[in-house]
Amino acid sequence: MSERRLARVLAPHEDAFGALLTDHLAGKRPIEVVERDDGFVFTGATGYWLAPRRAWWPQERRAMRLVRGRVLDVGCGAGRIGLDLQERGFDVVGLDLSPGAIAIARERGMADARAGTVSDTVRHNERFDTVLLLGNNVGLLGGEASGRRYLRELARVAVPGGRLLAGSFDPYDGASDAALRYQEHNRARGRMGGVERLRVRYRDLATPWYDVLFASREELAALADGTGWILRRFLDEGAGYVAVLERG
Amino acid sequence: MSERRLARVLAPHEDAFGALLTDHLAGKRPIEVVERDDGFVFTGATGYWLAPRRAWWPQERRAMRLVRGRVLDVGCGAGRIGLDLQERGFDVVGLDLSPGAIAIARERGMADARAGTVSDTVRHNERFDTVLLLGNNVGLLGGEASGRRYLRELARVAVPGGRLLAGSFDPYDGASDAALRYQEHNRARGRMGGVERLRVRYRDLATPWYDVLFASREELAALADGTGWILRRFLDEGAGYVAVLERG
Repeated sequence: MSERRLARVLAPHEDAFGALLTDHLAGKRPIEVVERDDGFVFTGATGYWLAPRRAWWPQERRAMRLVRGRVLDVGCGAGRIGLDLQERGFDVVGLDLSPGAIAIARERGMADARAGTVSDTVRHNERFDTVLLLGNNVGLLGGEASGRRYLRELARVAVPGGRLLAGSFDPYDGASDAALRYQEHNRARGRMGGVERLRVRYRDLATPWYDVLFASREELAALADGTGWILRRFLDEGAGYVAVLERG
Repeated sequence: MSERRLARVLAPHEDAFGALLTDHLAGKRPIEVVERDDGFVFTGATGYWLAPRRAWWPQERRAMRLVRGRVLDVGCGAGRIGLDLQERGFDVVGLDLSPGAIAIARERGMADARAGTVSDTVRHNERFDTVLLLGNNVGLLGGEASGRRYLRELARVAVPGGRLLAGSFDPYDGASDAALRYQEHNRARGRMGGVERLRVRYRDLATPWYDVLFASREELAALADGTGWILRRFLDEGAGYVAVLERG
């Protein structure tokens, strides 16, 4: 079963993320609808994507102590983390596939926020001391094969000894019966258990379908093996964690 | 273009309404997702469907003064209106296509709440002094041809001189550009402008697609003509209204 990674800048009619953030900032209290390929719909508020550091998940707050040097904030959204780091004196480049989110990050003051992919950064021979995949952005790995490719790509933009801080939730910890069934269905199709094929919908906008990976700590360790990253430790918070990896 | 009226009791995997009401009563603050056939998604809270009379739309509160005798509450849901009337001494029969909603209406004390259609009531030769199509339940008419058929069927369960109280919102009053485009698209397919082909989704449940009619006052008058109902007046509240019809 082929993996469907979201790996290009979204067209305007696909930019549900950008529209959600724009409406949130306009005080409209929008509700994000996430549709899974088995017909399940999830709904949620958008406040976390603009929350101040004191309201972040504990593992993300702890991860901030490990940031150093020049930072690449992958999937930076409206600049939740990137802006916070910039205000604390870090040199931060933000990347996101949502042009709307990037426009907001820039308006909010992020000096270098780009609608684009890590490949663009590789092409320009840029190097970073810290790479961030926070806010569940381990999800961007999408699956096993694409995940390894992506980690190798991230290794190319990190300096030797550079850090990768990558956050996820263990999908097997406290999984509901419905989640267990979906995971079983994934395995039957040769996918990792914690992959979810999703699209985000908001009003008349919908992203393409793409695979979001939730990985256990063991799975993340196995994925990283041989990609140029050495797994150093986990910052744990129940099912949630931030993995700390070092560029070998 | 054929009309798709929701005209049978929902199966468990289709009963998104029932699950929403059940979770609302359990304090879960569920969000209802309504998907339109052009890809638009609407989200909303479910509180109105359980609101006390003082929180109802003004036109619905005013309509209550016109209720008399034995009442058929069509699309009664969890008994918002039916229970209120029953507590004020009316003999009320509630009908809904959602078995979950009916189970809740019964638990909340509604003496006669049935998962079924108006056709069942016709078959049993029951007669009512007042028929209610409130909470936007003019929507159940679905379109022009199905709407006329449905009004004729409702006329068969009303006593001569009986009343029909039917609520809607004028879809042309303050329509957005997106709404105007959808209305134009409807007309091009031979549908009334204010029809919306929708399905309700909640978690892994989805109703079938069905047509919901929003009608202007003039359109409702034209639909009722020749169906056994005489249009008497409108209780107006901006774009919203309750039409008061009398069985000829």
